[in-house]
Amino acid sequence: MIEEIEGVLIDLDGTIWKGNELISHADKAVAYLRSLGKRIVFVSNRGNWSRRMCHERLGRFGIAAEEEDIILSSTVTAQFLRKHYPLCQVWTLGDEGLREELRHHQVPLAPAPEDADFLIITLHETMTYRDLDLAFRAVHHGARMIATNIDKTFPSEHGNAIDVAGMVGAIEAAASRKVELVLGKPSCFMVEAALRQLKVPPNRCLVIGDSVESDIRMGRMYGMKTALVLTGNTKRNELKALREKERPDYVMDSIYDIVGLGKEIVQ
Amino acid sequence: MIEEIEGVLIDLDGTIWKGNELISHADKAVAYLRSLGKRIVFVSNRGNWSRRMCHERLGRFGIAAEEEDIILSSTVTAQFLRKHYPLCQVWTLGDEGLREELRHHQVPLAPAPEDADFLIITLHETMTYRDLDLAFRAVHHGARMIATNIDKTFPSEHGNAIDVAGMVGAIEAAASRKVELVLGKPSCFMVEAALRQLKVPPNRCLVIGDSVESDIRMGRMYGMKTALVLTGNTKRNELKALREKERPDYVMDSIYDIVGLGKEIVQ
Repeated sequence: MIEEIEGVLIDLDGTIWKGNELISHADKAVAYLRSLGKRIVFVSNRGNWSRRMCHERLGRFGIAAEEEDIILSSTVTAQFLRKHYPLCQVWTLGDEGLREELRHHQVPLAPAPEDADFLIITLHETMTYRDLDLAFRAVHHGARMIATNIDKTFPSEHGNAIDVAGMVGAIEAAASRKVELVLGKPSCFMVEAALRQLKVPPNRCLVIGDSVESDIRMGRMYGMKTALVLTGNTKRNELKALREKERPDYVMDSIYDIVGLGKEIVQ
Repeated sequence: MIEEIEGVLIDLDGTIWKGNELISHADKAVAYLRSLGKRIVFVSNRGNWSRRMCHERLGRFGIAAEEEDIILSSTVTAQFLRKHYPLCQVWTLGDEGLREELRHHQVPLAPAPEDADFLIITLHETMTYRDLDLAFRAVHHGARMIATNIDKTFPSEHGNAIDVAGMVGAIEAAASRKVELVLGKPSCFMVEAALRQLKVPPNRCLVIGDSVESDIRMGRMYGMKTALVLTGNTKRNELKALREKERPDYVMDSIYDIVGLGKEIVQ
């Protein structure tokens, strides 16, 4: 199948790395795909990182990429705001990476929560009560809410850790308003950003990721080929319970299996 | 100011009519704007009506309009799905008007809730427990959720009646998933649909509506002129409490005041 594929969308957390560790031979898998001439974008729901931060980390793991080939939910959120709400200013609940990405795209940050047209919510691993209260104040004064993504938990070294859904839940409950837009995978906003960068039609694309909900469904909804890796969110014993619309074309122990998959046909 | 305006966005419920009654002289106000050569679109958060139904009702009140000049949240939802999720099929929780609008835009309706990629939620005034349960089943089997709008209540003959937020709340609570997209006013999706139809830049537009949250904020966010009418949601004694970003340029007892406003300057 690999020769039918021109573009590859690769997830990051759980596919390329896990916490601070590169997943074994993930760098070689990417190099292999590049050696076949495939176009590659990295597509991640990380909204608390900027593209620059992500680019640095890929480099540290020996994976070369242009910044434009990294598509984070923070990137897509910033681009969306810039394009569709050019006159609006925003407050944030999230780590510094989100603000870096917003600034990079010239999205105006509100000087005070009361002035914000939107509150943008993402994972906030350094959050304090004060951050939460300022975000609440923005919404209480009329800011509307956008979330970079709505993942409930992410795998940490201590097991599952509370993710963006927790930050969103706090503000929604206190302010009696709801998030009106979620930009992360598997939304059309992420897919269309990836396809614009790849310049490849969806039926010539392969999605490689560890999440059935984000990666496989995204690919399936657009008629892409899909490969589920078992190095992250999904375990082999969960495969039987998958619904038809969640079933990947390929299941791989890790992204490095792409090498075998390619060789089978390429040889 | 009226000569600076080329395009007018007019709300329906509470601005043109209230329940089954035309608001006094609203038809004359529209005719007056047309006589000045203004381009007009009707922009409503009604997601449980189709454009055809709305067109008929305007006609019954003696207000001529092309169907294309009516922009409902059901219209924008159908167009969004058709454009961004062309391979997806949907289940609905809402009145028949929504399904009519989806069919009109060739959005595939899922044969069973289990097959749906999306559940589309709008006001459902004929809802039964069974409708709610089928919608729950769609989400329980992996459908993602889109709401035409998220209004909490609407004014009925018996006072405030539960609106779309109630339908959304039921499914979110039971299925532990959240709506990821709300398309109604004051979102960019509605504004951009209106501007595409008007072919007028935002700073040459006037929004006339009864809702500070939907109509005035929508106009303010895009640099349009705004006129708040007191025939619907908002009462005169609430005006003092408005925040800066919610303040309209004009307050009118009813849309018919536009005639006086025009004459002041036109004469």
